Amino acid sequence: MAKRLIPTFNRILVEKIVPPSKTSAGILLPEKSSQLNSGKVIAVGPGSRDKAGNFIPVSVKEGDRVLLPEYGGTQIKLDDKEFHLFRDEDILGILHE
Amino acid sequence: MAKRLIPTFNRILVEKIVPPSKTSAGILLPEKSSQLNSGKVIAVGPGSRDKAGNFIPVSVKEGDRVLLPEYGGTQIKLDDKEFHLFRDEDILGILHE
Amino acid sequence: MAKRLIPTFNRILVEKIVPPSKTSAGILLPEKSSQLNSGKVIAVGPGSRDKAGNFIPVSVKEGDRVLLPEYGGTQIKLDDKEFHLFRDEDILGILHE
Amino acid sequence: MAKRLIPTFNRILVEKIVPPSKTSAGILLPEKSSQLNSGKVIAVGPGSRDKAGNFIPVSVKEGDRVLLPEYGGTQIKLDDKEFHLFRDEDILGILHE
Amino acid sequence: MAKRLIPTFNRILVEKIVPPSKTSAGILLPEKSSQLNSGKVIAVGPGSRDKAGNFIPVSVKEGDRVLLPEYGGTQIKLDDKEFHLFRDEDILGILHE
Amino acid sequence: MAKRLIPTFNRILVEKIVPPSKTSAGILLPEKSSQLNSGKVIAVGPGSRDKAGNFIPVSVKEGDRVLLPEYGGTQIKLDDKEFHLFRDEDILGILHE
Amino acid sequence: MAKRLIPTFNRILVEKIVPPSKTSAGILLPEKSSQLNSGKVIAVGPGSRDKAGNFIPVSVKEGDRVLLPEYGGTQIKLDDKEFHLFRDEDILGILHE
Repeated sequence: MAKRLIPTFNRILVEKIVPPSKTSAGILLPEKSSQLNSGKVIAVGPGSRDKAGNFIPVSVKEGDRVLLPEYGGTQIKLDDKEFHLFRDEDILGILHE
Repeated sequence: MAKRLIPTFNRILVEKIVPPSKTSAGILLPEKSSQLNSGKVIAVGPGSRDKAGNFIPVSVKEGDRVLLPEYGGTQIKLDDKEFHLFRDEDILGILHE
Repeated sequence: MAKRLIPTFNRILVEKIVPPSKTSAGILLPEKSSQLNSGKVIAVGPGSRDKAGNFIPVSVKEGDRVLLPEYGGTQIKLDDKEFHLFRDEDILGILHE
Repeated sequence: MAKRLIPTFNRILVEKIVPPSKTSAGILLPEKSSQLNSGKVIAVGPGSRDKAGNFIPVSVKEGDRVLLPEYGGTQIKLDDKEFHLFRDEDILGILHE
Repeated sequence: MAKRLIPTFNRILVEKIVPPSKTSAGILLPEKSSQLNSGKVIAVGPGSRDKAGNFIPVSVKEGDRVLLPEYGGTQIKLDDKEFHLFRDEDILGILHE
Repeated sequence: MAKRLIPTFNRILVEKIVPPSKTSAGILLPEKSSQLNSGKVIAVGPGSRDKAGNFIPVSVKEGDRVLLPEYGGTQIKLDDKEFHLFRDEDILGILHE
Repeated sequence: MAKRLIPTFNRILVEKIVPPSKTSAGILLPEKSSQLNSGKVIAVGPGSRDKAGNFIPVSVKEGDRVLLPEYGGTQIKLDDKEFHLFRDEDILGILHE
């Protein structure tokens, strides 16, 4: 990424993962078979500030595969690639294989 | 579960318990006879953060059978199995036999 | 109660008291004569958490006869018996004879 | 009062004072002449809890004659006598002769 | 005032000042010429409570001439004289000649 | 100003600056040419109170030229001159030449 | 800038960056090709105040190129040049090349 975005506060920059509609061997997958609204964390903000002004670190980190809410997030374009910004508390969970 | 989800904050991953519509002996149960909106806790988040940024642990644990609210929760699919995410404070209670 | 529910947070499990519509001697009471929306506390949650994460105990205890608000509460069924869950702050008072 | 109600939190049990519509000497008072929405405090709750879980005492005491808001309050019946429950902060002031 | 009201919390008892519609010399003033929504403070409450339960004193005192908001305030009658109750934070300022 | 207003809390008394519609040399300025919604601070309140009851000083001072929001503020008249009261947090900034 | 604005609280004065609609070589860019709602930080406020009245510094600084939300911000004109005021928390992130 030529242009880099460092999110503010507890914002999380996410690249949505579009599930393949056919397997690598070319077999067509039944529609919505594994439709999980997930994404890869590209960058994270320093966190929200507590009452004393200190940062509360966010709960995900760069590279995490995260479960995203169905709605919400701000769509942005950086170098013609589409990303989404989510608030840390709107990310539903971290996915592990 | 091949794919594992670790919920964020005070989110609770629940698998809803569908009550059997007939007894094991094959006798049909009267409709809604024991209709209780309950579920099994599959995974729990680290908790919400207090004003100082520390985690407040959630009030249920993996394996608990919990009473769920009639509405609410976020439906998600992991490996074609259906789960629900609830906020800790939305879980009504813990069921014991 | 075969199935037992331990409420979460400051939730209170209440069994509503239905006032007798005739006296024990069989005399029909005038309608609504002693209509008081009350209940018996069956189980209480550990309380809400304060900002430091400690539990604030609820203001009623098992066995208390409590005055309930006209509306609100969550109706639930345990072993075909009807109960209601109320938040501690929604209970109006404790009744003494 | 055979049946006694101890209010929870900062709730105040009040018996409304109905102003006499004629003087003791039998002279009819002009309508609304001294219409003041007041009541007598019958019982008070222990108070709200502060962030540390301690009770903050209410600002009125049993026996006080208080000025009530025009609307609000929960009407309840104890032994066929009518009372009202108000939150401490909804009571407008204490009346002195 | 035979009947005295001590306001609760940060409530302020105010007697509105009605500006004279003609000068003392009998000259009719042009309508709204000095229309300022002001009042005299008759009594003040002990103040709101802070998180620790201590009173935060109100910002005006008995006798102050205060600037009132155009709307708001609770109208009450004490001994057939009209007064208004305002919350301390709704009083706009203190007037000095 | 014969009549003086000391604002309460974090209120700021402002006199709006009406931009001249022609230059001092008499040349008519194009409409809205330098239309900036600004004002001069006439008096400031002691500030809001923090949780412990102490005053938090306001961010502007008497004499400051301030940028005002397009809407909001309470219009008042003192000695037939028009002023506006704004909350400290509604003032957008301080203008310097 | 002849006239200078120092924003109050956590307000950020931003000059929006209008992307060139053709390249420097004169080639017309396809519409919206690199449409990123960004701006340059011109001035920053001292920050919000925490509960104790201390300033919490803002998360951007003069000169930063920032990503702006699609809606929001207050448009102002200083010396016929257009600027926008944003609250620190509404700025989405900081852009780096």
